[in-house]
Amino acid sequence: MAVSGARTLSEGALRGFARAIFEASGVPRDEAEIVTEVLVRANLSGHDSHGVIRIPQYCGSIRAGVYVPGAALDVVHSTPTTRIYDAHWGLGQVAMTRALDESMRLARDVRLFSFGIRQCNHIGRLGHYAEVAAANGFVSIVTVNSTGMGAAVAPYGGREGRLGTNPFCMAFPTGRDPILVDMTSSIVAEGKIRVKRNRGEKLPDGWILDRQGNPSNDPADFYGPPRGAILPFGGEVAHKGFALSILVELLSGTLTGAGNVGEREGQIGNGVFCLLMDVEAFRPLGDFESAATRLAEYVRSCPPAEGFQRVIMPGEPEAETRRRRSASGIEIDATTWSQLADEAARYGCETP
Amino acid sequence: MAVSGARTLSEGALRGFARAIFEASGVPRDEAEIVTEVLVRANLSGHDSHGVIRIPQYCGSIRAGVYVPGAALDVVHSTPTTRIYDAHWGLGQVAMTRALDESMRLARDVRLFSFGIRQCNHIGRLGHYAEVAAANGFVSIVTVNSTGMGAAVAPYGGREGRLGTNPFCMAFPTGRDPILVDMTSSIVAEGKIRVKRNRGEKLPDGWILDRQGNPSNDPADFYGPPRGAILPFGGEVAHKGFALSILVELLSGTLTGAGNVGEREGQIGNGVFCLLMDVEAFRPLGDFESAATRLAEYVRSCPPAEGFQRVIMPGEPEAETRRRRSASGIEIDATTWSQLADEAARYGCETP
Repeated sequence: MAVSGARTLSEGALRGFARAIFEASGVPRDEAEIVTEVLVRANLSGHDSHGVIRIPQYCGSIRAGVYVPGAALDVVHSTPTTRIYDAHWGLGQVAMTRALDESMRLARDVRLFSFGIRQCNHIGRLGHYAEVAAANGFVSIVTVNSTGMGAAVAPYGGREGRLGTNPFCMAFPTGRDPILVDMTSSIVAEGKIRVKRNRGEKLPDGWILDRQGNPSNDPADFYGPPRGAILPFGGEVAHKGFALSILVELLSGTLTGAGNVGEREGQIGNGVFCLLMDVEAFRPLGDFESAATRLAEYVRSCPPAEGFQRVIMPGEPEAETRRRRSASGIEIDATTWSQLADEAARYGCETP
Repeated sequence: MAVSGARTLSEGALRGFARAIFEASGVPRDEAEIVTEVLVRANLSGHDSHGVIRIPQYCGSIRAGVYVPGAALDVVHSTPTTRIYDAHWGLGQVAMTRALDESMRLARDVRLFSFGIRQCNHIGRLGHYAEVAAANGFVSIVTVNSTGMGAAVAPYGGREGRLGTNPFCMAFPTGRDPILVDMTSSIVAEGKIRVKRNRGEKLPDGWILDRQGNPSNDPADFYGPPRGAILPFGGEVAHKGFALSILVELLSGTLTGAGNVGEREGQIGNGVFCLLMDVEAFRPLGDFESAATRLAEYVRSCPPAEGFQRVIMPGEPEAETRRRRSASGIEIDATTWSQLADEAARYGCETP
C-alpha cells in the first residue's frame, strides 16, 4: 500500500522518466540508457539504495562538473588478458558497462580476462554487472573501493576508520537465476546508520565503535565529532570481514592503480576491479549449470533453523524481487519521489 | 617451556625426520621432499593443525591404499589459460605443488591462468601455495571444498550440515612478507570443537546448532547422534559467511568438475581451484608492492580498540611466527610426538 506521497511506477514508466531527466541534464542518449538500466534494475532487484534514489545526486554532480557526461573511456595499459581503463570521471555505470562489454568480447578468445578502471565515478550495484557476466556464461568477480575519501570502517582491533565498506561480488550462471554473492565487508552500510539516527533509534550491538574504541549503540557516537567507526563484519571473528576488506582494497585500488584509501583526499569515486572466467574453459557450460543447480537444490533441502522459514540461496532474494516488481511495479518512497519531481521540474520533464 | 613428552625440534631436524618417515612408507624421494616442505612450513607458520600432526594420518592412508605415492598428475582438459588436472589420489601436497609450478610457468606468457584438480587428497595449508605464488609476483586465489564426505556446516537459516568448512585464500606480494587472507567460511574448524569436547569445556556462543536447530554450547550436541551442525561465520550477518562458502564450493567443486558436497559419498578429498594473476599484467610489480606496503602502513597506523595492543594485517601472524620458530625451533606436543615416534618405529626410522 502506497504511503502518502509515495508512488508506484511500472518498470517501463520509471525507465522513461529516469532517461528523460538524464538526457535533459546533458547526458547523451546512449549513456542515459545505460545509467537508467543499471539504476532501475537495482530497484527491480530490491536494492533501492542503489536505484533511482541516486538520480538527484548524479544530476547535482553533473551540474557541479564532477560527473562528466560523454567522457572518453581510454585504455591506458593492456595485455592480451588484461586492461586498465581511465574513465575520466564519466558516469560510472557507463564506464563499467562499456568496459565489461568490451572485456566479455575479448574474453571469448582468451577465456580469462581482467580489467580495472581508474578515475571512475560510482558504478552502482555490483551485482548488476556480475549478473550480466553470468548471463553470458562467465563466472565473475567484481570489487570496488572508495577512492578520494575518508574511510569509515575500522580494521579489526582498531578504533578509527581506515577502510571503505569495500563490497565483494561474484556471480555464477545456472541456466536460470544466477547464484549471486554481493556483500559489503563492513557489518552495515553507512546509510543504515543515518536512517537509525534520523529515526532516533539505537543501533544493534556490533555495528560501531565510539572515538575511544568502545562499542556503542548510539548513532551520534559514529557521526561525532569526534567521529567513531563502523566495524567489519564477522562479530567474534571480524578479522575475517577485515581480511575481505583488505583484499577488496588491494584488488580495486592497488592492482588497478586506481588508488587506495588514505593516499589523498580528492574526487570521490570507485576503483574498479573485474575478473571474467569463461566457464567453457573449464567444462561445458551446460554441465556446470546442471551441477550448480543440483548444489543449490541440495543446500535448499536443509530444514530451517529456529526462526527461519527456509534456506535461501545467495541471489534468490534479488531474483524473486525482480519477478514481483516487474509484475506489480516499483514503489518510490515519498522523499525520493519529491526529489525526483524537483529534478524533473528543473529540467521541464514530465512526471509520469 | 616444553611440557613433559613434548619436543622442540629445529626446522632442519623436523624436515629430516618427516622426510625419512615418508620415504620409509614408500613415498618417492622427490614427493617426500614436497609433502615435508608443505607440512613443516605449516608448523613454522603457526598452523600446527596442518603440519606434521598429519603424518600418521597420511601414512595410514598410504598403507590403506587410499593415498597413492607416485601417482601421475594428468591434464584432462586444457586451454591456453586453464587446465584441469587429475591427481589420481596421489599425495595432495605433491599434486598441488606440481600443478602450481607448471601453471606459474604457463602464466608467465598468458598473465592470467587458472587450474583445477580432481581426485586430489588433502593439500594442507592453502596459504602455503598462495605465499609461493606471491613470492613469484602473482596475486592468487586458492580454494578447496571437501569431496566425498558428509557436510558439517549448516547454510544460513538451516539446521543441518550442507557444506564443508570451505576455506578461501588469497595472497598479495609486497616485496617482503605477503599480505595473506586465509580463512574458513565456517565460524570454526571441526577440530576445535573436538578439542573442547575432549577437555570437557563448553563452546562459545554462535559455534553450533543442535539437531533441532537451536543454538547450543554443548559439544555433544554437535557430535550426536543425532548430529548437529557448525555455523557459517558472521554472527548477525552469517548469510555472508554462508555466501562465501557457496562461492568456494562452486569454484572448487563445480567449476573444476571435482565434485560437490551432497553428490556422493566416496573417497574424501579436496576439490582444488586456483587462479593466478601476474601483477605485471596490471602495473609494474615494484609499484604494486610499494602501494600495498603503504596501504598496510596506513591500516596499521590505526590506534587500537579496547582490548587490543595494535592492528595486525592479514598474514602478519604467520610471518612473525615463521621468524620466531625458524630461530628457536618448533615445539611438537606430547601426543603428536608419541604418534610420530610410533610411525618412526614402525618403519625403523631414527627419532631425532
